[in-house]
Amino acid sequence: MTEGDLVVPGFKASAVSAGLKKNGGLDMALIYCEVDATVAGVFTTNRVQAAPVVLSKENIKDGKARAIVANSGNANACTGIRGLDDARATASMVARQMGTREQDVLVCSTGVIGLPLDMGKVQQAIPELVRGLSEERFSDVARAIMTTDTFPKLSWREGRAGDKRFKVLGLAKGAGMIMPNMATMLCFILTDMRIDKETLSRSLSLAVDRTFNRITVDGDTSTNDTVLIMASGLAGNGELSQEDEEGFITTLEEVAGDLAGMIVKDGEGATRLVKVHVRGALDGESASKAARTVANSLLVKTALYGNDPNWGRIMAALGRSGVPIDENRIDIWIGDVKIVANGLGLGVEYEKSAAEIMKEKESYELLIDLNQGQHEDYIWTCDLSHEYVSINADYRT
Amino acid sequence: MTEGDLVVPGFKASAVSAGLKKNGGLDMALIYCEVDATVAGVFTTNRVQAAPVVLSKENIKDGKARAIVANSGNANACTGIRGLDDARATASMVARQMGTREQDVLVCSTGVIGLPLDMGKVQQAIPELVRGLSEERFSDVARAIMTTDTFPKLSWREGRAGDKRFKVLGLAKGAGMIMPNMATMLCFILTDMRIDKETLSRSLSLAVDRTFNRITVDGDTSTNDTVLIMASGLAGNGELSQEDEEGFITTLEEVAGDLAGMIVKDGEGATRLVKVHVRGALDGESASKAARTVANSLLVKTALYGNDPNWGRIMAALGRSGVPIDENRIDIWIGDVKIVANGLGLGVEYEKSAAEIMKEKESYELLIDLNQGQHEDYIWTCDLSHEYVSINADYRT
Repeated sequence: MTEGDLVVPGFKASAVSAGLKKNGGLDMALIYCEVDATVAGVFTTNRVQAAPVVLSKENIKDGKARAIVANSGNANACTGIRGLDDARATASMVARQMGTREQDVLVCSTGVIGLPLDMGKVQQAIPELVRGLSEERFSDVARAIMTTDTFPKLSWREGRAGDKRFKVLGLAKGAGMIMPNMATMLCFILTDMRIDKETLSRSLSLAVDRTFNRITVDGDTSTNDTVLIMASGLAGNGELSQEDEEGFITTLEEVAGDLAGMIVKDGEGATRLVKVHVRGALDGESASKAARTVANSLLVKTALYGNDPNWGRIMAALGRSGVPIDENRIDIWIGDVKIVANGLGLGVEYEKSAAEIMKEKESYELLIDLNQGQHEDYIWTCDLSHEYVSINADYRT
Repeated sequence: MTEGDLVVPGFKASAVSAGLKKNGGLDMALIYCEVDATVAGVFTTNRVQAAPVVLSKENIKDGKARAIVANSGNANACTGIRGLDDARATASMVARQMGTREQDVLVCSTGVIGLPLDMGKVQQAIPELVRGLSEERFSDVARAIMTTDTFPKLSWREGRAGDKRFKVLGLAKGAGMIMPNMATMLCFILTDMRIDKETLSRSLSLAVDRTFNRITVDGDTSTNDTVLIMASGLAGNGELSQEDEEGFITTLEEVAGDLAGMIVKDGEGATRLVKVHVRGALDGESASKAARTVANSLLVKTALYGNDPNWGRIMAALGRSGVPIDENRIDIWIGDVKIVANGLGLGVEYEKSAAEIMKEKESYELLIDLNQGQHEDYIWTCDLSHEYVSINADYRT
């Protein structure tokens, strides 16, 4: 992937160091569309919603937008009326500089909760952001929205609608407070597809449900989670056929899936990426609940960190999940090694082989068959390490 | 508290090293009542229940028991039919040695899940346990049931029923997998009170609900949790008056409260014991849910470890708790320092004072006022430290 790949017709981007991050790194970004873009978004389900979430939800209602302005270093959450004023003022400054309407500017923030945004710094940064706009600066945007992330997250695909090619570019940040629905994350997806508001919105929801809503790091849901998609319509395609639409959703899901995988892999202090897959459940909700309870169990997550196929902890998590399991029917695999059959351990030899897989592979599947029905579900999780504790004990200091 | 205090008329105890624990420490214990004791119990709500739980639930049904035999080092959970046979065989061996009925022997196990109990060792230990029975060996019992516990847990009270004095002695183990309902814990409470089965059972449930069901270490519920109470009836009291009964419950609650506090304090790797107290809720369930979500949030628990009054994480946890909060009404205190009023931070000075409390005190209150109604609830939690990860990553190795 070169910087040249990261171009989507109609879009420009820029990033600067506004001084909101203590380390002096890039911390403000602007994405601008030269034409009216169709827009859709998915937002945090937390009842405490950051000011920029409140504003952006409002501003995407008409399905049109021209710009996203984002900052890291400060979440502008739990900041009351002043926070909302600050988010509005940010949108307004961008709108004035770009000659667009204020309601066509979306605002996203991520970082520390509860401190007012330093509007002096924001005000100073915006003209610089506008001057810096370029077709090839999306990787800087990915860097500017990082908080505890250890690497910038970008993914890119091309697809075809009729005889036209379209592009989908995704940028995301997220490493901690990851939990459906959704992760603490910001994600901006840009495409040149010509697509109506309803189809775009439906496609985004489907893609998010299959990707970002299936990752968990620590069971916490943030106040700022936002996924935005903007479509410039410059790909030149006509009305979408059923097949085109499905192709678009698949492409979108691939990009979102890449980014979701990167987020769990960058889970604070994580050393392993594990797919917790439950099958044989009586219904879909049971499968999901069982997978999520196992994936969020601290005892399971510390065992993953210790490369210990401690299936007793998996059984205990299943037992408290609220799902009507039958202990004596459960089978468990680590990768391709079966370690439990009918609720009983298969013995030390199998556990040794499983431990080898856990040691050697950065990513593997933990498969649980409840042997009760036909339903299945999965969720990606990571291990819980010393590093997680260090990162989160010292976050603000 | 001297060994002499730890005597309850009618009861004897003993403990030995059977070789079930790797470190060679005490790992089997026997408690014996010289007369038929009235008995009641509260057991894990986990659907995966260890063999000794299944057996003991069965054996207390008639409200009578003579002995408790317990082991650490092996949970005898997820061990199938063989596990149940082993638990029964253990009860049967004790019954034969003591000349009691098999169904009057209760069995408790704690330790690693999924491995069969080494019955050779158990068989060898039982005669030795019987020979060692003494009125003054309860602190050895507390030691013999320890797993990751760093200290034995005992508490003791005297009360008065009419003109008779009675005693309540409690022994417990528990350090990890602590979560309502209940902790991974074993707790044996012995009293000489003369009391009928129904009153004893009701009293125990009330005491457990107010103590053990209000502590959390990591949100995991074990397969083996058991609280048993045995009453020898030798205190010589008559029929209990309403006042006597209330006095008994209070005494029981004090003992259980002491033990619950010790368990959280000994939470794996814990350095702080924090009472998360939610008031001003619309109903009791909301108060409980809000308190539990905050108390189990990894981000809150790591902030407690870092002595960081990071109230944004508390707000975020409240926001995802499912409780209908109004962000702009929330007040938060650490100890006696208010750090949030109407959902907004009161500033750095207050946070500094709060951080001082967090640094200096081993135990403090985190008070949240939702300012919506009249209901309140609380739960004790601990911080999440590097040590927790170390203990649980390496538990089986």
